[in-house]
Amino acid sequence: MIHNFNAGPSILPRQVFEQASQAIVDFNNTGLSILEIGHRTPLFQAVLDEARALIKELMHLDNDHEVLFLHGGATTQFFQVPMNLLDEDAKAAYLDCGVWGSKPIKEAALFGTVEVVASSKDKNYSYIPKHFQIPEDAAYFHYTTNNTIEGTQMHAIPDTRIPLVADMSSDILSRNMDFNRFALIYAGAQKNIGAAGVNMVVVNKNILGKVKRRMPSMMDYRKHIENGSMLNTPPVFAIYVCMLTLRWLKEQGGVTAIEKINDQKAALLYDTLDRIPLFRPTVEKADRSKMNVVFVMDNPDQEKAFLDLCKKEGMIGVKGHRSVGGFRVSLYNALPLSSVQILVEVMQHFALKHA
Amino acid sequence: MIHNFNAGPSILPRQVFEQASQAIVDFNNTGLSILEIGHRTPLFQAVLDEARALIKELMHLDNDHEVLFLHGGATTQFFQVPMNLLDEDAKAAYLDCGVWGSKPIKEAALFGTVEVVASSKDKNYSYIPKHFQIPEDAAYFHYTTNNTIEGTQMHAIPDTRIPLVADMSSDILSRNMDFNRFALIYAGAQKNIGAAGVNMVVVNKNILGKVKRRMPSMMDYRKHIENGSMLNTPPVFAIYVCMLTLRWLKEQGGVTAIEKINDQKAALLYDTLDRIPLFRPTVEKADRSKMNVVFVMDNPDQEKAFLDLCKKEGMIGVKGHRSVGGFRVSLYNALPLSSVQILVEVMQHFALKHA
Repeated sequence: MIHNFNAGPSILPRQVFEQASQAIVDFNNTGLSILEIGHRTPLFQAVLDEARALIKELMHLDNDHEVLFLHGGATTQFFQVPMNLLDEDAKAAYLDCGVWGSKPIKEAALFGTVEVVASSKDKNYSYIPKHFQIPEDAAYFHYTTNNTIEGTQMHAIPDTRIPLVADMSSDILSRNMDFNRFALIYAGAQKNIGAAGVNMVVVNKNILGKVKRRMPSMMDYRKHIENGSMLNTPPVFAIYVCMLTLRWLKEQGGVTAIEKINDQKAALLYDTLDRIPLFRPTVEKADRSKMNVVFVMDNPDQEKAFLDLCKKEGMIGVKGHRSVGGFRVSLYNALPLSSVQILVEVMQHFALKHA
Repeated sequence: MIHNFNAGPSILPRQVFEQASQAIVDFNNTGLSILEIGHRTPLFQAVLDEARALIKELMHLDNDHEVLFLHGGATTQFFQVPMNLLDEDAKAAYLDCGVWGSKPIKEAALFGTVEVVASSKDKNYSYIPKHFQIPEDAAYFHYTTNNTIEGTQMHAIPDTRIPLVADMSSDILSRNMDFNRFALIYAGAQKNIGAAGVNMVVVNKNILGKVKRRMPSMMDYRKHIENGSMLNTPPVFAIYVCMLTLRWLKEQGGVTAIEKINDQKAALLYDTLDRIPLFRPTVEKADRSKMNVVFVMDNPDQEKAFLDLCKKEGMIGVKGHRSVGGFRVSLYNALPLSSVQILVEVMQHFALKHA
């Protein structure tokens, strides 16, 4: 039995693997592989339509919000967002709350002025900055809802009247939020939405068309909207895997239901970490992520032994990111509660033996 | 029995479908799906390394030429190429020889001056312009080696001393060429390389770093080279399918061997078209594509009946593109000769009945 705690690409539901595997040899009893069907056929149109509709339904999006599946990962959005929303003589406000939160700041600076409203770099991004001021004259405010590397998460939507833009790559669809409050949301698919190779973008169409810049067709959100998210050959299979994963999420009861399980998983793991003195979470309690749990050991010499034990018990993806060290355990939607229960047991055993 | 003549996404070798399907439930006996493995693991690194090495081997590339697998399709390259190679005060030369050849011209004009050296738009792109002059002061000359929609193909490499850039999306790896003569080659994978959702780029590294423009990280070929084609999370599964397809091509004997079969397939079909008066190829004989064969019927009223017959015989992807009408039959590497033989039989039967 394998327990996959990968940070992304990461675990997806077993039924998604089985259905995707089947579709590669015979898609919907057509005798054709999903990999060889034309993207402009009713066969694939139905997949794309269902994927987009499921996002709208699961996120309770209003009619101003369009759903796009685009080529590239979040790193593509780091520059596509300012290209579409930030004029050369305008300003955008960014929150610097992690390695992944700092990258879009660098990219946005190529297009206009960037004001960093706050940063938690002083403490290796181990907390979410609070009480920052978002300038009212900014074109938009950008932040990362969940920091995959550092294991922090912003639990409330910032209170501002300017358009909100968020990178939700690592906690999209894991919890209820008023998604309609966002002007633009983007997420690489390879955590809670599907497999690597596609980007999900939700955009309020009213925010578009305001910059003076001329931009390449592939970068213009409006062109993608006009073309129903099929401006060019889309990543067909990656979108199919998204559709299957979204179907699974709906079957589980949607975001509300999965949030309850996610809360249970996170509570169980953090409670264990707080109870066992050997382990120490690296993040401020109020800012703990429910998706990526980062911790170290008080005695770093014991870390290798614990890692070896995890490996022996079939656990993968437990080693921490090189910038933080220690351990990182990702608890995405598809990870069953049972995997966390087993991890917690292993931690308790280890603590008894090494205390 | 299905015969898949799709223009792309299109047929891939049966063994690729079977291996890809298996890897989604259990990749290399790891117990893990290829969709849930980390991209920075030795597991995926081996896939990426093999895919890049196979391209170098199959195309006989020298050490100046780097192989990248990038997000997006050829449409992304339409602007990424000029962004990297064309300064604002410089000029690039483009050949306008098809619907897909005209699109990159529009995108390049956003970055510098574009000189269109010749166009075949006057005759609905049914031929390849000849005897054009490529200005010696251009930063590069761009052309499309094979025009998927119109069914034309440039059979020789243009004779010029300026850097050559080519969109080879629809005939890459189908025939031998001196690929080292190109400064940059790009191709959407979904025809001869693999499945939709990844772009293959071959670039002579000496041509890079010459423009003054600052560009987004994701658009800078140099950053992708520095990072071994893994600047961000790559489209893992799409690259895996490329690797499997390239392995298959090598097993067939490489490009030289597949070119012989491609020649046979094209000769058989064009000979039949030339022999049966009912059918008429739309393209000038010298410029016929061996990948996409476009033809109409002298009596357009018969087209529906022929299309219905093809459908009855299990043939898909035979209908022509809306801009040309009639029929388009794509003969990519993975299409077996037997499919063309059966198509030819169907044409002969139809001709006997309707002559």
